[in-house]
Amino acid sequence: MIELYHAEPGSNSLKVLQAVHEKGVPFVSHYVDLRRFEQHDPEFLKINPAGQVPVLVHDGRVLTESTVINEYIDTVFERPKLRPADPYDEAQMRIWTKFVDEVFRPSLSHLAWHRVMPAFADALPPGEFEKRLERIPLQEKRDKWALAARGGFTEREIRTWRRQLGEAVDRLDAALQEHDWLVADMFTLADIAMFAMAFGVPPGFPELMNAKRTPSAMAWLERMRARPGVAAALAMPNRTLAA
Amino acid sequence: MIELYHAEPGSNSLKVLQAVHEKGVPFVSHYVDLRRFEQHDPEFLKINPAGQVPVLVHDGRVLTESTVINEYIDTVFERPKLRPADPYDEAQMRIWTKFVDEVFRPSLSHLAWHRVMPAFADALPPGEFEKRLERIPLQEKRDKWALAARGGFTEREIRTWRRQLGEAVDRLDAALQEHDWLVADMFTLADIAMFAMAFGVPPGFPELMNAKRTPSAMAWLERMRARPGVAAALAMPNRTLAA
Repeated sequence: MIELYHAEPGSNSLKVLQAVHEKGVPFVSHYVDLRRFEQHDPEFLKINPAGQVPVLVHDGRVLTESTVINEYIDTVFERPKLRPADPYDEAQMRIWTKFVDEVFRPSLSHLAWHRVMPAFADALPPGEFEKRLERIPLQEKRDKWALAARGGFTEREIRTWRRQLGEAVDRLDAALQEHDWLVADMFTLADIAMFAMAFGVPPGFPELMNAKRTPSAMAWLERMRARPGVAAALAMPNRTLAA
Repeated sequence: MIELYHAEPGSNSLKVLQAVHEKGVPFVSHYVDLRRFEQHDPEFLKINPAGQVPVLVHDGRVLTESTVINEYIDTVFERPKLRPADPYDEAQMRIWTKFVDEVFRPSLSHLAWHRVMPAFADALPPGEFEKRLERIPLQEKRDKWALAARGGFTEREIRTWRRQLGEAVDRLDAALQEHDWLVADMFTLADIAMFAMAFGVPPGFPELMNAKRTPSAMAWLERMRARPGVAAALAMPNRTLAA
């Protein structure tokens, strides 16, 4: 039996939600409310001491890291395969999922924190943001959120993340100019990983990703949304939208 | 036929050199001299436009990214297996290789650049360092090396990398207190990836990794060095030592 601890269908949670829906694997959903910092609740830390979603529990064994979880799901549940059979194509798929983890997601996350964290912290009662920060188990994340909340990222950092995000979107667009999917003309975990981040770029950074500048990437977003599994993942409860 | 473009047996080059030697896969070695910036030569850029080693060429197909290359090698050449058979253990292995790529290696590299780049740039004829920088295809790397050469990393960045490196070494040591190898009591790509970075820590940062502070990790380094494949990889030509 699979249990999934996840937040809204976005970012790393969306990555795993797409995989289980596309594979048709039944799962028990445990919603973790990030806006309430539930990922840092003592209850949740018993499951993942790092205080991060998503987490997969399969037959009592706990697995973290969305990219690793998705390969695991594709190994354990046979069909439909979300990885190419050819080892070289499989390697290309992994270069994409690695690129998402090391470049696309970090640049997007930092820019998002830079944009929303000051207002988010201000909107809480005095001292409440600091209290919540104290509960973050990973010091690096604690430090980064504190820094973001006081607008402390340097100009150089912000410039770098913006350039990286722009280049990432361009790379995505270039790869899709001649193909419907990123690797080996089949829908794979590379498309899933990329979509989990990229679908948030047009609303958040319309100047970087739009029908004129990156038409192939925009058309691919629509192909992704049209997939029943992806659509089902996107239809999962989203309290952020309701706010 | 396998061809491998690599530098000294250290860091990402050592990662792949260990894998081919441990698997006993015959390969043609192409040495790339990083101190001469040969990875940015037009000749090499035809093979890898990113200007990075290692690169694997297998039956004419070019593959980059050491972590991806190692999984590919283990898939294509059957024995001995360097990945656990159990999918859950295999996932744990990937969590380690991911940790090396996202935390261990970046913190170690940045600290090393901070330490050696100013003297390296100073030792070159006037204008030569700038000329070499211009040939780096990845702008991010170009910017970082230029910044490192003028001692431009912030105190916060250096503090963060030092803390991350210390925590990474502690995590390695903790995992090895009850086990000879990182995952599933077998030698895997996780040990290989970790060793490629960790073996440089005791000489470079003896205060973080030593017999008193991290005895289990130190004993594991010796177990690693005693493996014939790892020893063969370490015995590959190393012009850095001769300098």
